[in-house]
Amino acid sequence: MVKALIFDVFGTVVDWRTGVSQDVATYCAEAGLSVDSVAFAVAWRNLYQPAMEAIRSEGRGYVPLDVLHRENLDKVLVDFSLDAAVGEADRVRLNRAWEKLPPWPDSLPGLKRLKTRYPIAPCSNGSIALMTWLARYGGLPWDAILGAEIARDYKPKPAVYRASAAAFGMRPEETMMVAAHNSDLEAARSAGLKTAFFPRPTEHGDNQTVDLEATSDWDVIATDMVDLADQLVD
Amino acid sequence: MVKALIFDVFGTVVDWRTGVSQDVATYCAEAGLSVDSVAFAVAWRNLYQPAMEAIRSEGRGYVPLDVLHRENLDKVLVDFSLDAAVGEADRVRLNRAWEKLPPWPDSLPGLKRLKTRYPIAPCSNGSIALMTWLARYGGLPWDAILGAEIARDYKPKPAVYRASAAAFGMRPEETMMVAAHNSDLEAARSAGLKTAFFPRPTEHGDNQTVDLEATSDWDVIATDMVDLADQLVD
Repeated sequence: MVKALIFDVFGTVVDWRTGVSQDVATYCAEAGLSVDSVAFAVAWRNLYQPAMEAIRSEGRGYVPLDVLHRENLDKVLVDFSLDAAVGEADRVRLNRAWEKLPPWPDSLPGLKRLKTRYPIAPCSNGSIALMTWLARYGGLPWDAILGAEIARDYKPKPAVYRASAAAFGMRPEETMMVAAHNSDLEAARSAGLKTAFFPRPTEHGDNQTVDLEATSDWDVIATDMVDLADQLVD
Repeated sequence: MVKALIFDVFGTVVDWRTGVSQDVATYCAEAGLSVDSVAFAVAWRNLYQPAMEAIRSEGRGYVPLDVLHRENLDKVLVDFSLDAAVGEADRVRLNRAWEKLPPWPDSLPGLKRLKTRYPIAPCSNGSIALMTWLARYGGLPWDAILGAEIARDYKPKPAVYRASAAAFGMRPEETMMVAAHNSDLEAARSAGLKTAFFPRPTEHGDNQTVDLEATSDWDVIATDMVDLADQLVD
């Protein structure tokens, strides 16, 4: 029996592509720079997995995602020929784009309803601080902030899911991982958790080809966060 | 300049003595047992510091406070000659008394106002799970749950205050510890944090003799949580 819910955040709860690209566009307009802000956001995000892999399996000690985002920003600025144009203070400001990401429209009503029955927390690769700023920006009603920083490792390592369940005092099988990414749920299931899926068909834009539907028999399959609440809350 | 606030919880935000003693009284009435429930709650709480000391300085590995509370409950039941009368399931139930503690009347309005300007989190010796259940019980509007479990050690060890500040991405001097206990603030100040005090003159009942007033020049001295918000929020 499920007693707690934990959630992927980037893509599942918030729209990182819109949020980051709009903040990059705003900055570039102010700074008089010309850039394809969506391509910039996507290139920045594409460095996310290799940066975490250094910690997951290449011996690098844990650092919060904010640090990885900043290192990746420096690389993307080089790739977009903006390295000379963007100084240190502006890089600090740009890195905070990840703290101001819009929730998908159904996220807040769904989470608020789910919270009436279950304790809810992010199980994201974002740091406690980053998850806190996102929650304050978007009004996300988390009961606690769990995830990578609790485990000092990164998803999809099983320790992250298990540590998040344990921090709520739960066994893995009492905890349900909610995500719009099938691979996240594969890992959560392997770690012993229950799983819930709904798609975010425009997370990667209008021509998205991945995660448009469930690719396994997850414990719950929904259309969005509100439908998940309809299925889990009486 | 202070950018985040962290809070002691037992005594400062919630009334543990009333909450625990009432839950013990309710259980004993249901079970047909006779006990001085306030004396029982106080005896239970008196084992709190020595239990943590085993972890702080005697080499025991970190276990969550819920585990220490349970070990201490077993001892108090012996001391009150209730060891034979209370079975395992009832001990599990009794230990959850710590999850249902009433906030002081000013705690919610003060915290809600402070949250409009600052990120707020408990920096308690309670576990993430216990702080989550207390928040859900009392409606405490925390942005995140910090404290002992983040540091895997217990206050007043400096690592607990510093890890809580760091989890918010803050330097110690950007973080203010709020407590109704002067000793907690001494430790927080030694760890580099800013400090705020207000008294809880009936935490230990009507004849309380400790922590009735500030014993040092804390950065802010208030009368209660609402007065603290008056002083910190425009």
